[in-house]
Amino acid sequence: MNSSAPIKVGVLGARGRMGSEAVRAVEEAVDTELAAALNREDPLSGLVHAGVQVAVELTHPDSALANVEFCVDHGIHVVVGTSGLGTEELDAIRARLAERPGVGVLVAPNFAIGAVLSMRFAELAARFFESAEIVELHHPKKADAPSGTAARTAQVIGRARADAELDPMPDATTKEFDGARGADVDGVPVHSVRMAGLVAHQEVLFGTEGETLTIRHDSYDRRSFMPGVLLGVREIGSRPGLTVGLDPLLGL
Amino acid sequence: MNSSAPIKVGVLGARGRMGSEAVRAVEEAVDTELAAALNREDPLSGLVHAGVQVAVELTHPDSALANVEFCVDHGIHVVVGTSGLGTEELDAIRARLAERPGVGVLVAPNFAIGAVLSMRFAELAARFFESAEIVELHHPKKADAPSGTAARTAQVIGRARADAELDPMPDATTKEFDGARGADVDGVPVHSVRMAGLVAHQEVLFGTEGETLTIRHDSYDRRSFMPGVLLGVREIGSRPGLTVGLDPLLGL
Amino acid sequence: MNSSAPIKVGVLGARGRMGSEAVRAVEEAVDTELAAALNREDPLSGLVHAGVQVAVELTHPDSALANVEFCVDHGIHVVVGTSGLGTEELDAIRARLAERPGVGVLVAPNFAIGAVLSMRFAELAARFFESAEIVELHHPKKADAPSGTAARTAQVIGRARADAELDPMPDATTKEFDGARGADVDGVPVHSVRMAGLVAHQEVLFGTEGETLTIRHDSYDRRSFMPGVLLGVREIGSRPGLTVGLDPLLGL
Amino acid sequence: MNSSAPIKVGVLGARGRMGSEAVRAVEEAVDTELAAALNREDPLSGLVHAGVQVAVELTHPDSALANVEFCVDHGIHVVVGTSGLGTEELDAIRARLAERPGVGVLVAPNFAIGAVLSMRFAELAARFFESAEIVELHHPKKADAPSGTAARTAQVIGRARADAELDPMPDATTKEFDGARGADVDGVPVHSVRMAGLVAHQEVLFGTEGETLTIRHDSYDRRSFMPGVLLGVREIGSRPGLTVGLDPLLGL
Repeated sequence: MNSSAPIKVGVLGARGRMGSEAVRAVEEAVDTELAAALNREDPLSGLVHAGVQVAVELTHPDSALANVEFCVDHGIHVVVGTSGLGTEELDAIRARLAERPGVGVLVAPNFAIGAVLSMRFAELAARFFESAEIVELHHPKKADAPSGTAARTAQVIGRARADAELDPMPDATTKEFDGARGADVDGVPVHSVRMAGLVAHQEVLFGTEGETLTIRHDSYDRRSFMPGVLLGVREIGSRPGLTVGLDPLLGL
Repeated sequence: MNSSAPIKVGVLGARGRMGSEAVRAVEEAVDTELAAALNREDPLSGLVHAGVQVAVELTHPDSALANVEFCVDHGIHVVVGTSGLGTEELDAIRARLAERPGVGVLVAPNFAIGAVLSMRFAELAARFFESAEIVELHHPKKADAPSGTAARTAQVIGRARADAELDPMPDATTKEFDGARGADVDGVPVHSVRMAGLVAHQEVLFGTEGETLTIRHDSYDRRSFMPGVLLGVREIGSRPGLTVGLDPLLGL
Repeated sequence: MNSSAPIKVGVLGARGRMGSEAVRAVEEAVDTELAAALNREDPLSGLVHAGVQVAVELTHPDSALANVEFCVDHGIHVVVGTSGLGTEELDAIRARLAERPGVGVLVAPNFAIGAVLSMRFAELAARFFESAEIVELHHPKKADAPSGTAARTAQVIGRARADAELDPMPDATTKEFDGARGADVDGVPVHSVRMAGLVAHQEVLFGTEGETLTIRHDSYDRRSFMPGVLLGVREIGSRPGLTVGLDPLLGL
Repeated sequence: MNSSAPIKVGVLGARGRMGSEAVRAVEEAVDTELAAALNREDPLSGLVHAGVQVAVELTHPDSALANVEFCVDHGIHVVVGTSGLGTEELDAIRARLAERPGVGVLVAPNFAIGAVLSMRFAELAARFFESAEIVELHHPKKADAPSGTAARTAQVIGRARADAELDPMPDATTKEFDGARGADVDGVPVHSVRMAGLVAHQEVLFGTEGETLTIRHDSYDRRSFMPGVLLGVREIGSRPGLTVGLDPLLGL
């Protein structure tokens, strides 16, 4: 896709679970080069000495902001895969970026491209169907039901239905075992399956007269985040300022 | 499958929704012949005059028992597709059959072969998996959630798990939106989707370390009952007495 | 959705399989009114006398063009559900419309909204995944394999992959039973299942490192075309000229 | 499930990919105990010294037979997970077992319980459906299409259909792109999807008038073999002689 010199990438949190996958992904891609792989004990100046163009931040919510600020100050673009950055942190990053107009930072809650596309397609489809429900299926060690992604998807669908002034979904249920019809998230029923053997899966179902449309995303392991991280690495250099979410990079 | 003369079949309730399908199915099959098609106003003696060997009872819970008794008394085998026969009616049929040892009557709650196989496979599989859940999906005019078939399937799974002395299913859920984890039927979570466009569908999911097994049944219209009815018509002549459920005929 | 007076609709081919569904759909919708239901023997002037605003053309490829031209000449918008209109007919319609600048005609190869969305989503997703394949499943009376929709979807995916300059899909197959890897349509493998009980179904599968995305459309009966027809009826009045395909009306 | 002393297990090939999983599984199960973990360089006498009751053979086709023979001679039951044992090796094992009547050896081509159940259910269901097809989906590094499991499943279905004297499947296809209808394995169409992101998945689809039945098996990683291996470990002590395939242990 890119015939010029590979992008010099630095991974922060290189020994972590996500970090070690990022190291592998950056090494394997032909258009990126691993210039630095830093761990907690390593000084950030290593990024500068290695000539890093884009840093991938995968450490910990506690250290993420300081790391991003260091990079911005030194003209290094950043792709942030660490979860848990709130409004305050985002505002701080924006403020820092204001002083360095050429630098770009990407913060995304989910780097799995399939998950991002699923949510966007669900949003686009919602207004054309009488009914919409979500079935999400995860490993049994998950603490929350429904998953954050399922809840966000339901909200997006609920808002699209409201904007289109759709009627409430048809449902003649009069005799229900408690819980059978799922959790109500903004008017969208969400069902959570927890099962040994599974990883992370989600089906968004839409139905109208005589037809149904199903958008299913299966995530088999954390490597599923890497194509999204690499996409961020490739694109953030031409997107100064703060970008939140992968959507703009996907052209959606 | 059968090179001998076709079986002479009489349909009771021939103008009803199920009855008209049965008439069509009996006419189309090469090894059955429609000898009589009776409606409410027609005398049952028509079955005798037409030389009917097997009657298919598809009228109404109120008239079913009397119709079956007439047939048994006249040496006509019966396949009963009318739902709603309880223990008392079954006992009455058994008593009547005791006097006519050569005659057979089949009463089945569900004639969709795929549904019967699904339930049996679920029963066989249950003891080998840590987790089991059911997702059933129906048109939005359905009044009960979960469906009767889903509830029975859950019970069968629950009993098989108990017999195998399995541990409770793993589930680390601590933060749950009300209803997300479905209805609890004998320890098996059941999720009910109600959606425009759908007909009647069920998925039984099993999971254990690294693998899942899914048994899915899709019923698209009431013709799905006809292969089961025809199987009953073909087999009941060689099964004197009362047979409850399609399972014995399926060799399961 | 619309609080103004209902749209006066005329159905051409009202006794046909599609036409009778259209009559029912127009009658049931609150914002449309069945003003005329014409069959082969009825004069088209009936549309004018009834004050029809939008005609739904569902007759036959042989009569469709003349019917559309009559409507355009009389200032009636048309939604054409008759399949088989080629480039010549479209050009003729365009020429006629040039003389009646306020009139709109919609011609669509597929009115199932779910099918149109599926194809569009497949097009959007294609460039983000290493692999793409299609499994389409139909009733066993279908003459062509793959289906026209599957072939078109594969072409759309193939073009999107080419535009993104993606590498060929990974595939280490060296030992293959003839046909196992499906038909090759513009580089996309397409697999056709033909099965008793099925109606019309399609799965588009995309895969990359650690994740897959599946877009599935199930069409259960010809009523699935009616929401698309109604959408056309509602929108065509504000879209003068010729519109080909449902996509522009879906805002995709 | 078992309140008596844990079974003393020895793993042969303990450092291999499968072996290391077996070591972990034996350690984690409450009713088994890892008594010995041997690698290529370790003498087999280690099994005897450790008092091993059941050995799990996971080395290599070249060494498997000698290892099994050593165990049989020393009264140690064996569960063989090494693939590639042919008729000759099985005959040799049978001969050796003849001299040690109390000892049991289990050789299975597939230890994933879900896969074994899938095949058995497919066999049971086959005669009740007009149509049967298989879609198997694997990672793109797989060399053969269809997979061995899919081919065996198709053969089992083909034989069951022949035994029931079913008519050929309905299929009106007259216009086919080469390969669209899949590979023909004993009359059963088999479709092979090869896709980045996938692991090992199989769907067996059955259809008849108005309904379909789908049996799907998803294998996410090699740990899926461990429940089957543990089942073998638990059961082989009470099954003297040679057992081929997991089916008898599953009570199918």
